[in-house]
Amino acid sequence: MTLPLIASALAILYSLYLIRWVLKQPKGSPEMIEIANAIAEGSSAYLKRQTINISFLAIPIAILLAYFLGLNTAIGFILGAAASAIAGFLGMNIAVRTNLRTAQAAKKGLKSALETAFKGGSVTGMLVVGLALLVVSLFYLFTQDLQALIGLGFGSSLISVFARLGGGIYTKGADVGTDMVGKIEKDIPEDDPRNPGVIADLVGDNVGDCAGMAADLFETYAITLIAAMLLADIIFKQPNLVTYPLTLGAIAILSSIIGSFFVKLPKSKKIMPALYKGLIVSSILALILFYPATMALTNISNLAVYLSSFIGILTTALFVVITEYYTSRSFKPVKSIAEASTTGHGTNIIAGLSISLKATFLPVLVIALASLAAYQLAGLFGVAIAATSMLSLTGIMVAIDSFGPITDNAGGIVEMTKQPAKIRQVTDSLDAVGNTTKAITKGYAIGSAGLAALVLFSAYTQELSHTTAAMNFNLGNPYIITGLFIGASLSYLFAAYSMEAVGKTAMAIVKEVRRQFKQIKGLMEGTAKPEYSRCVDIVTQAALKQMIVPALIPVIAPLIVGFTLGPQALGGLLIGSILTGIFVAISMTTGGAAWDNAKKYIEAGKFGGKGSLAHQAAVTGDTVGDPYKDTAGPAINPMIKILNVIALLIAGFLT
Amino acid sequence: MTLPLIASALAILYSLYLIRWVLKQPKGSPEMIEIANAIAEGSSAYLKRQTINISFLAIPIAILLAYFLGLNTAIGFILGAAASAIAGFLGMNIAVRTNLRTAQAAKKGLKSALETAFKGGSVTGMLVVGLALLVVSLFYLFTQDLQALIGLGFGSSLISVFARLGGGIYTKGADVGTDMVGKIEKDIPEDDPRNPGVIADLVGDNVGDCAGMAADLFETYAITLIAAMLLADIIFKQPNLVTYPLTLGAIAILSSIIGSFFVKLPKSKKIMPALYKGLIVSSILALILFYPATMALTNISNLAVYLSSFIGILTTALFVVITEYYTSRSFKPVKSIAEASTTGHGTNIIAGLSISLKATFLPVLVIALASLAAYQLAGLFGVAIAATSMLSLTGIMVAIDSFGPITDNAGGIVEMTKQPAKIRQVTDSLDAVGNTTKAITKGYAIGSAGLAALVLFSAYTQELSHTTAAMNFNLGNPYIITGLFIGASLSYLFAAYSMEAVGKTAMAIVKEVRRQFKQIKGLMEGTAKPEYSRCVDIVTQAALKQMIVPALIPVIAPLIVGFTLGPQALGGLLIGSILTGIFVAISMTTGGAAWDNAKKYIEAGKFGGKGSLAHQAAVTGDTVGDPYKDTAGPAINPMIKILNVIALLIAGFLT
Repeated sequence: MTLPLIASALAILYSLYLIRWVLKQPKGSPEMIEIANAIAEGSSAYLKRQTINISFLAIPIAILLAYFLGLNTAIGFILGAAASAIAGFLGMNIAVRTNLRTAQAAKKGLKSALETAFKGGSVTGMLVVGLALLVVSLFYLFTQDLQALIGLGFGSSLISVFARLGGGIYTKGADVGTDMVGKIEKDIPEDDPRNPGVIADLVGDNVGDCAGMAADLFETYAITLIAAMLLADIIFKQPNLVTYPLTLGAIAILSSIIGSFFVKLPKSKKIMPALYKGLIVSSILALILFYPATMALTNISNLAVYLSSFIGILTTALFVVITEYYTSRSFKPVKSIAEASTTGHGTNIIAGLSISLKATFLPVLVIALASLAAYQLAGLFGVAIAATSMLSLTGIMVAIDSFGPITDNAGGIVEMTKQPAKIRQVTDSLDAVGNTTKAITKGYAIGSAGLAALVLFSAYTQELSHTTAAMNFNLGNPYIITGLFIGASLSYLFAAYSMEAVGKTAMAIVKEVRRQFKQIKGLMEGTAKPEYSRCVDIVTQAALKQMIVPALIPVIAPLIVGFTLGPQALGGLLIGSILTGIFVAISMTTGGAAWDNAKKYIEAGKFGGKGSLAHQAAVTGDTVGDPYKDTAGPAINPMIKILNVIALLIAGFLT
Repeated sequence: MTLPLIASALAILYSLYLIRWVLKQPKGSPEMIEIANAIAEGSSAYLKRQTINISFLAIPIAILLAYFLGLNTAIGFILGAAASAIAGFLGMNIAVRTNLRTAQAAKKGLKSALETAFKGGSVTGMLVVGLALLVVSLFYLFTQDLQALIGLGFGSSLISVFARLGGGIYTKGADVGTDMVGKIEKDIPEDDPRNPGVIADLVGDNVGDCAGMAADLFETYAITLIAAMLLADIIFKQPNLVTYPLTLGAIAILSSIIGSFFVKLPKSKKIMPALYKGLIVSSILALILFYPATMALTNISNLAVYLSSFIGILTTALFVVITEYYTSRSFKPVKSIAEASTTGHGTNIIAGLSISLKATFLPVLVIALASLAAYQLAGLFGVAIAATSMLSLTGIMVAIDSFGPITDNAGGIVEMTKQPAKIRQVTDSLDAVGNTTKAITKGYAIGSAGLAALVLFSAYTQELSHTTAAMNFNLGNPYIITGLFIGASLSYLFAAYSMEAVGKTAMAIVKEVRRQFKQIKGLMEGTAKPEYSRCVDIVTQAALKQMIVPALIPVIAPLIVGFTLGPQALGGLLIGSILTGIFVAISMTTGGAAWDNAKKYIEAGKFGGKGSLAHQAAVTGDTVGDPYKDTAGPAINPMIKILNVIALLIAGFLT
């Protein structure tokens, strides 16, 4: 247990060092500072209100947990929720400070901008893994209570689903609404200061892509560790195996810190290879160090266990490659969407939808075969270790991801303060890469979540096998089939409500932006200032209101099914939700990114370039892809895990 | 066995009577006849080439079946394929003759047009059930070979998947391509004779919505009967129970014939209630007659069996109500899409996608609970009987459905020959109802297919339980999980290829239509005629080429998985494909119809009416909904069943 504590402390210390470094960078002109302050203010205000709103649900849940499952579980729940919220909050607060400094650094060039943005993003990455490993390790050290650890996972899941939903509705409601009037009706560029929705849009990047994403990966990381520990305990009952997943996490944190030093712009000026270098160094280092650790710590066929961890890293690599293929401007899928835009809005959407459906096949095949291979190697524990090893790279992954919203924001500040076009080009090229890395992280999160959820399901069946002897989960059993259907429907229902929420919020923004353009004289000419704060208020209220219904679906459904149709139907529900959840999530996150980059491909001058009919159609596709990739898709991930965690918690009460 | 033979003979005779009646109706002006002939010619030419192309695959399959599974199975395969093709071919040939007569009848008013269109549609309905029940009954009577009956099912499935795909790609490739230039770029109305794609579009209604739909429901009906018979044999080994499903089919045919006489326009002039009346009378009559038949023929707890058949009819009723809620202009979902159109293309698509996702929940819940209830009543046989009883109403359902494409075509003829607006109003009001009935039939087909597929899966597991003793399909087994994932991915992959095919075909048509508008002088002014046949050729070739890859997916996948990963993974694959298949299919068919009717709602004068920005956005939504509802969505249905049938056929070779 020493190594995990040291590694997590190191990660937190390193992130403090990075914060100091970032804050020391020059902040740019007073104009830029003014805008950055407006963004920071809007972001903090929203996140505070979101946290307060969630606590209205979290406090009664904590009380129920204390009553039914004991004080430890309730404390774990609060701890998990608090740590997840803190990781998101701190990460976002640094991001809103880094955006300004990245905009300033962009004046010096790409190299400097990349360094600033990546270091700012690394704060979130290190905080996520550092805090998660720390609370899981410390809590287990003091309580030795695995049941209570599930409570900790539940707390982080609950924060995560709300953060993903609220943040996602916020960011995309603002983005879609702002773009639909600005880009399509008024034909003014993105982030134009005349657009009344632009500050709300920039705030959205932070509360959604930064805070929401951090909470999501905190949860995925913590839950995976917990599931692996739980399974080790159930199967082997050996303390050294129970803490082994924590050791893998610790090793990967150290590797990620070292790997992050390798992210530097090469002479070729290509950004993606710079990021990949960091990831590859971290992966290889982790794989090398996993070997002695596995040999020393595991006394069951340790080569098989090591190979399982290898499968986890390999799966990550394959996910990165597949996602890049489907979302990068260099390959056929994105080009085919761009080409379809030349014949209009309809064919753009049809092409994008077919790419989004098709993009599920390879990732799912990889997950299916990886879990099969890991199982063949080391049984269920092998699957758990593959998931742990896959997730262990979260630190570097989040760092690579969250530089995206930072540069997106930096670009906004550059545009709004009317800096020279050259500077905007620097931030734009970083932003385009950010689109793909964001898609990669989401694919990675949902893929590993699939594995983690399978582990949780196994833990659930194992729990039940202790209580009742002859619990079977045979597909011939009609309760299992009914459960599968109901579980499968939850991902669809959840995604439907999330999409609807974005649509409604966007419509409200469209109306407000149209109103301001109509009523504020001189706005279009640039002689009058828009009322940014009205849009910020509208989105804040809409997001807080509309996140509630979808977030309650995964909390309530397992209780209803578990207590009416019984534990077998609930088991079916878990697998059903994992099955469709992975498809809905991957199709949405990948499809959305492909739409976005198809638009960027046209904006780079292909198929008629900016202002052409193809561009108009591509903007529509991007608009549709927005709630896909940043709201509904990524929120599926915590949803699946809440279902599984609640099932685990109530397993003891079902007979 | 007497009753099924009598009932199927009666259905065929009745359809012959209807054909005579339709052909006696007046055909209208020479202009109208000319257009109808062009449509008929294009439709027949396409269907012939499609049939020839399929036979290149069907003949080697028949030889393989004869070699590995015996001559009976091969003969059954050919018989099933031939009967399915004949039902579609005859039905379509009458439809292309009824369209003209309906256009003429519309001059006399709504009542007369409804009568003509419904009688023409009833030909297809009666032929589908009559031929299906006849070949299944006769083949079983002569061979007494249930294994060979699976071959018959396979034959009909193969025709069905190609007909759905080929017809679907044809109809929507033409429709989308024609509309995108005509309605959006040129701002001319639907079916305007100046549009070069208009004949191809009208041909598409026949080969897709008529022939494709007929083949699909033939297959669903036949497969369900066969699955129920197979299961009765496996479980009970009693001949009276094996033929009992055929008797239910026979009773429902008689009820459907009687019910169809009740379809008459009421004084209120409301069309939907007229159609419902026919359906309700048929259902009640069938339910009454099922009772004595069940009591006489089944010697196992016959009340439970009767109640299972009741569940099947109830499920049908609930499906009708739910689908109407989501797709009719009278309710919130369609109105919400229409409202979202006021803020642009993007919000229209987002709203439509969220409705399409949400529309899966209730139907799936109904299927899940219906199968559970039927199982509780009478075990697996109960589920089989619920599916049979649900499907037994196919005759009246298809009649109600296929009046839709007939009136759609009639409207086209009216528009192209520039008849007074009053006549177009008559066909339009019938067409709008047709949209909803088409969605209902598709929901019904996929819902019943879900039940039928569960029965086939059970038959598959039972087959295997005979060969190897300890075959288990436990969710804890990694092969099952891997199979589930792979099976689930097939629906997505299949839908992706189908959507892509429509997109590509539509793009080809857009380019051709744009070319003609540019190069043919006087086309837009109406002084020159377009080259309709060029568009017909392009769509024909595209559809024939593009249907191949998706159609092969369900043929090849079970062979690969079965022979490499084994029978358990294959079992998982079957359930996985049913699970995601039902969601993909329902979301697409319902969502597509909702988009279409949202457009019609705006065209009726709401939210700015025709020509407004909202209308433009709604046309985009309709365009996207087209391949959803008429290509990818409905083709999922035969896909699922091919997977299951092939699994059943190869079960004996897997160990």
